[in-house]
Amino acid sequence: MPHYILGIDGGGTSCRAAVADAKGRILGRGKSGAANILTDPDNALIHIVGAATAAFEEANIAPSEIGSASALLGLAGSNVGDAVHYVQGRLPFAKADIESDGLIALQGALGDSDGAVAILGTGSIYIARQGSDVRYIGGWGFQIGDLGSGARLGHALLQESLLAFDHIHPSSPLTDAVMAEFNSDPRDVVEFARVARPGEFGRFAPKVFAFAEHNDPVAITLLRASAQTIDEALDVVVARGSRRLCLLGGLAPLYRPWLAKRHQPLFVEPEADALTGSVALAAKRFAADARERA
Amino acid sequence: MPHYILGIDGGGTSCRAAVADAKGRILGRGKSGAANILTDPDNALIHIVGAATAAFEEANIAPSEIGSASALLGLAGSNVGDAVHYVQGRLPFAKADIESDGLIALQGALGDSDGAVAILGTGSIYIARQGSDVRYIGGWGFQIGDLGSGARLGHALLQESLLAFDHIHPSSPLTDAVMAEFNSDPRDVVEFARVARPGEFGRFAPKVFAFAEHNDPVAITLLRASAQTIDEALDVVVARGSRRLCLLGGLAPLYRPWLAKRHQPLFVEPEADALTGSVALAAKRFAADARERA
Repeated sequence: MPHYILGIDGGGTSCRAAVADAKGRILGRGKSGAANILTDPDNALIHIVGAATAAFEEANIAPSEIGSASALLGLAGSNVGDAVHYVQGRLPFAKADIESDGLIALQGALGDSDGAVAILGTGSIYIARQGSDVRYIGGWGFQIGDLGSGARLGHALLQESLLAFDHIHPSSPLTDAVMAEFNSDPRDVVEFARVARPGEFGRFAPKVFAFAEHNDPVAITLLRASAQTIDEALDVVVARGSRRLCLLGGLAPLYRPWLAKRHQPLFVEPEADALTGSVALAAKRFAADARERA
Repeated sequence: MPHYILGIDGGGTSCRAAVADAKGRILGRGKSGAANILTDPDNALIHIVGAATAAFEEANIAPSEIGSASALLGLAGSNVGDAVHYVQGRLPFAKADIESDGLIALQGALGDSDGAVAILGTGSIYIARQGSDVRYIGGWGFQIGDLGSGARLGHALLQESLLAFDHIHPSSPLTDAVMAEFNSDPRDVVEFARVARPGEFGRFAPKVFAFAEHNDPVAITLLRASAQTIDEALDVVVARGSRRLCLLGGLAPLYRPWLAKRHQPLFVEPEADALTGSVALAAKRFAADARERA
């Protein structure tokens, strides 16, 4: 009986799974709905199993084999013990290791080489790996962390638009465009911001990049400040020895030209995606099991 | 029958009232509980009437006279129409005008002269008056406004403490002290910040001033940045003609030495408090009524 391994990339939008043989060769892939173990662990479980089942189906393997598979799951919220224990105890796999979504992204991007990833999306976090040593820097969420993230950049834009409205800072086509979106009424901006979630602030981030391309002075000021926070975090991972830096996340290609010259020679393109990374980690992690069975 | 006027200063902690004769000479004062018309309008009404009744009692005037008094109320949240209409329609006074808490503070601080006040407490707002023209600058609340406020300064300190924890920015005795308060666990800081209200962030602000006095480099950096936001707002009111600036609020005496040299010659001490200001505004506003009756 062959031993199958599963790599699973579970996120707030969707969950993807790949089934592979013991050497990590992918046999089939599957996808399902959101797998947010913090806000909705029961649906996360359903979607994890759904994605795994779909992967087995694509590979023409009997779904009953799921119960004997070893799975490595990369999940957001993996640092919150309660949620992890709840989910881990209910998974139908023979073995299941839960790691961070960042770690499988790093494995996918860098393969087995040392280096660091900067994940620049709605949030921001940096992960550096040297051999078996993995370190997380930043993150901490929108409220007092995630500097350089889309949410923080969008937040800064709204704040700057109010400062421009009050003539405390100069206005620009960008701040004019923001105010126009809110009926030129600062109270509408305040009301939006009072209840907005990080993703809703983040939707303003691409606007900053777009206006900066047309030399909007406020956009350039905001982007320089935001890029500086990223450069400062990259300085830490470089000082600790990382010589390959991979920018990931939706804002990665937008930010890259705004980052410091000193970092440009260190940037590398990602080798593969997070799902591939989860399979590769699973293959390494469960290689011993496979040898035992062989 | 004499015509009495009432000045009322209603805030989130307490409500104060003063009854005066038609010329604005204060005859008695009273105090009661919180008068937050946004979060609890019914209790605000009870406490407004309670403070007024206490003022009439101290002045040895029959409480039944309250119904013929003209009142000017300075209330936080006076820019929210629904709350104002609800409260105004239920007040027992012959006349009742509701103004902002800031306007009565300005009237108290500057008397009838032109100038501006900067109110620096948990929040921040600037009000400038030239003759009958009154302009508000800033404010807008903690989420995307209130720069320089205690809440924003405390927030900046927590963020900086996490940056120091990650070695992205230098640590200092101040950031060490903050982390020690949170068991040196950044997750505890994040959890606090996730649910903290502005006042809870604001409680960290005095610590920044205290450590800056002992030359803590992080405290000094944070305070300079925060003071700069105040100086920039003061530049706007000065550019519009204000030549007298009065700093009010709990952080006013702490901030003053950190503000720019160009503003120092313009600072004046407040003449009186907000309650006195509400009485003075009431006396001006209702002078015509008093003459009619005389």
